[in-house]
Amino acid sequence: MNGAPAAADLKVVLSDALGIVRETRALIRNALDKGFTHRSKADGTFVTDVDIAVEEKVRTLLAARYPAHRVIGEELPETGGGDALTWVIDPIDGTKSFRHGVPLYGTLLALLQGDDPVLGIIDLPGLDKTYSAARGLGARCNGRVVALEDLSGDEALDREIIGIGDRQQFVSAGLPSVFDTLMRAHPGVRTYTDCFGHALALDGSVGAMVDYDLRVWDTMASKVLMEEAGGRYVCSERTGNDPRERRFDVILGKPRVVDWILDLIATDERPTGKA
Amino acid sequence: MNGAPAAADLKVVLSDALGIVRETRALIRNALDKGFTHRSKADGTFVTDVDIAVEEKVRTLLAARYPAHRVIGEELPETGGGDALTWVIDPIDGTKSFRHGVPLYGTLLALLQGDDPVLGIIDLPGLDKTYSAARGLGARCNGRVVALEDLSGDEALDREIIGIGDRQQFVSAGLPSVFDTLMRAHPGVRTYTDCFGHALALDGSVGAMVDYDLRVWDTMASKVLMEEAGGRYVCSERTGNDPRERRFDVILGKPRVVDWILDLIATDERPTGKA
Repeated sequence: MNGAPAAADLKVVLSDALGIVRETRALIRNALDKGFTHRSKADGTFVTDVDIAVEEKVRTLLAARYPAHRVIGEELPETGGGDALTWVIDPIDGTKSFRHGVPLYGTLLALLQGDDPVLGIIDLPGLDKTYSAARGLGARCNGRVVALEDLSGDEALDREIIGIGDRQQFVSAGLPSVFDTLMRAHPGVRTYTDCFGHALALDGSVGAMVDYDLRVWDTMASKVLMEEAGGRYVCSERTGNDPRERRFDVILGKPRVVDWILDLIATDERPTGKA
Repeated sequence: MNGAPAAADLKVVLSDALGIVRETRALIRNALDKGFTHRSKADGTFVTDVDIAVEEKVRTLLAARYPAHRVIGEELPETGGGDALTWVIDPIDGTKSFRHGVPLYGTLLALLQGDDPVLGIIDLPGLDKTYSAARGLGARCNGRVVALEDLSGDEALDREIIGIGDRQQFVSAGLPSVFDTLMRAHPGVRTYTDCFGHALALDGSVGAMVDYDLRVWDTMASKVLMEEAGGRYVCSERTGNDPRERRFDVILGKPRVVDWILDLIATDERPTGKA
């Protein structure tokens, strides 16, 4: 596959990608049974040997199938680049949860055409759920179609749950006021961090997910998933030409809830819709 | 069984109680497959027909086995009372999560001797985990012993996750400052609401869980579970002689983390250790 993938091609690639992600579950299960080690990274966060093993596994399987594609991952150096297509891997999104035995982590895989994700997978081994989507092919969870219903009226807004990242992410983004404003303005704001919160937004379990200071591997799968599910994904990008340095502030979910949040937070703090 | 139950008696009662709770899982699974209805309660929260069905099931099974015992439940009127022993039922703790399809709800059952819980069960059907404990018999999760390890030193405190209830609970308790202070003081505070947060505290996945404005059925199982797991449970009680009107502000978890939180929040806002 070279250049712009056709829908028929994407269907095959999605099936391949799902197979690749599923193969990583054994590594995670094994680590949870037998234990794993961790160490600090330069940015102060932790990485476990499971993060590395999962990313290596995905890279090996991708290289066998798509040797020309560029690959960016959270834990290992960039490879490839002879092609306009880029795979983006987050082997364990929610390493903090994973390390602490909280089952709300996941493995993320996206395929970008230029800067646009055309395929995305969120796999949640701890909940046995796999969300997948590709451009024009819709979104699915464990094979079942995911189609988001918007709120029928604003009157139901208070009954929604709104997912949000850790306050620390908003501090890192220089915008703790976004976190604090939302927490005070709505009775159902909960820190459903990492891809778990994104998955809940896809299901409509939360009206929207507000997640700031993300890296490229944290959010590309969610963009195509949410758009294919019929929801809204708005994003503001900050800093950097190096893909590893880019930061994304995103809000995704039911259009009316996303709009309500955009109206609530100040103009200078809101994602603009620029992807 | 009458009066103070001996450990041998409690072992039998715990086995009965586990069987009773397990029988409710089919009702929950069925509702998730086929759908369920909900309505508002007088306090503005929601109740589903599943909450009612589960509480009825538990009451029927308890009445057959322990007809003399008093029974208090969240959704149905108090019954019995010829005995010093009281069963306390929360058929679905985390109804908001349940209604929204977030798998972090549970069924709670406790047995009180006077005002002291001597047996407690937290069942999390969405995660397939059952925590159980009885006085002198230790705590278990799916049969495996739960024994909490305290932090070895304060230096690790920042790396802990701290679970907390919804901010709205702290508003209802008249103490939103406790929520806000904790959110600002620690980088890993997350709203892991309801019994899910209590279960994470038992596992040591969160260093402590801070949960305010609870009813009697929200917290009695956790008290005996945490104490039998070797952790610390502190509680401050507000208002009411009627058991339905009592409110509990609790902090439970690793002793060093609980102590750090008690030191952080102001003297007039902290649970005192009074159970």
